Amino acid sequence: MTSDRIWTAGLLVIGDEILSGRTQDRNIAQVGTWLNLQGIRLAEVRVVADDMAAIGEAVTALRASNDYLFTTGGIGPTHDDITVDAIAAALGVPVVVHPKARAILEGYYATRGGVTEARLRMARVPEGAELIENRMSGAPGIRIGNVFILAGVPHIATLMLEALSGQLEGGRPLLSRTIGCWAPESEVADLLGETERAHVACQIGSYPFFRDGKVGANFVVRSTDEGALEACASDLLRRLQEAGLPVAGEEI
Amino acid sequence: MTSDRIWTAGLLVIGDEILSGRTQDRNIAQVGTWLNLQGIRLAEVRVVADDMAAIGEAVTALRASNDYLFTTGGIGPTHDDITVDAIAAALGVPVVVHPKARAILEGYYATRGGVTEARLRMARVPEGAELIENRMSGAPGIRIGNVFILAGVPHIATLMLEALSGQLEGGRPLLSRTIGCWAPESEVADLLGETERAHVACQIGSYPFFRDGKVGANFVVRSTDEGALEACASDLLRRLQEAGLPVAGEEI
Repeated sequence: MTSDRIWTAGLLVIGDEILSGRTQDRNIAQVGTWLNLQGIRLAEVRVVADDMAAIGEAVTALRASNDYLFTTGGIGPTHDDITVDAIAAALGVPVVVHPKARAILEGYYATRGGVTEARLRMARVPEGAELIENRMSGAPGIRIGNVFILAGVPHIATLMLEALSGQLEGGRPLLSRTIGCWAPESEVADLLGETERAHVACQIGSYPFFRDGKVGANFVVRSTDEGALEACASDLLRRLQEAGLPVAGEEI
Repeated sequence: MTSDRIWTAGLLVIGDEILSGRTQDRNIAQVGTWLNLQGIRLAEVRVVADDMAAIGEAVTALRASNDYLFTTGGIGPTHDDITVDAIAAALGVPVVVHPKARAILEGYYATRGGVTEARLRMARVPEGAELIENRMSGAPGIRIGNVFILAGVPHIATLMLEALSGQLEGGRPLLSRTIGCWAPESEVADLLGETERAHVACQIGSYPFFRDGKVGANFVVRSTDEGALEACASDLLRRLQEAGLPVAGEEI
């Protein structure tokens, strides 16, 4: 039996390129999805520039208000990669070279021109940290306390999340069921609100769209209780059908 | 002549669907790109759930630390659309029905089944607010003080940004030039750092990729000073060529 306690995480996305619009972030959606599967809710995301003070302030706030904090970005070999330094400073610990990370990099670069001073930057961690495996590019992620420092490149972050799967304590996963309806959400707003109030263990989100010249919406029912979820979804489906709306028992 | 003062904005993305990973955010990149063109720098983004307290806390923090605050999401007709209420509460003003917004909605829905109570929710604004035109779906965006409340649906947010183009005071736009290089970024890390230190009016970002079985990186030089930007980009190009690297004078 899993606990009813709700576990939460914060995510800090680090990088000028996200704020400038140059790079489309992919990590918010992938970390949020992965956390749901671990029974952990993503409660807040912040995106900040490659700036020591901005990173430190966000780290201090988000790790205090959540069970876990994940960060993405800024752990490569170049001068703008300052995540490790900023987090170490925020935690009040020095930066040290992790012997195992150095060994991993030496192995990885043995056939790729050898380890340089720049590449060794990727073995630097806040003192007391453990490594998070990355079986693709050598450079590992870093865990220190409740802070998990991941790569910014989405497919490398994916590998680090895989290495962490099932390792973190969480609660019940947030379950969801989606019901689609070819109607403007404004026509069903009252019905949705009434249904949600009748099912206190559930939330209902409404996500409108405009497609093929027609308007519609998907209604997502969410709950950590499977029985409550099914009861709410069935009730919503019935109410929509009774209102004579073109409804589907799944996402459209 | 434009001022050297740097104008900044915060962005608050509101919605459970972004945090759960269900919906891929598109507004961070589009707002960031649009702000650059207005000479305003996106300094911080937060993503929070559909929760009065979380929205209020973020609004208070971000509007105090930036010249402007933009929000996206939570202004539709359904029960989970609480952005207006949360922002009004954070600003300490009541929510009122804006007569012009009501007229716009009455016109829009005249041939679409008429205005209902749910649809009229979209005419509610914090007292003292002005409207931001939305020529697509009727429901307008909202401006109150330095806070700009936009739709969450990206193409409707686009229309609201278009309506605001050239309306906000900003500084010099942040200019950029990109130089691509088919080399691991770890091989050029020292060279990049030295180049940046030699050009104090510029920042250089390094964005590695893995494509067609080869590694490479794009180096983005940014500055508000066109002359400084060109000098730095030329210097970087020359240094990369002198290092014998396969370099391109543009993004690869």
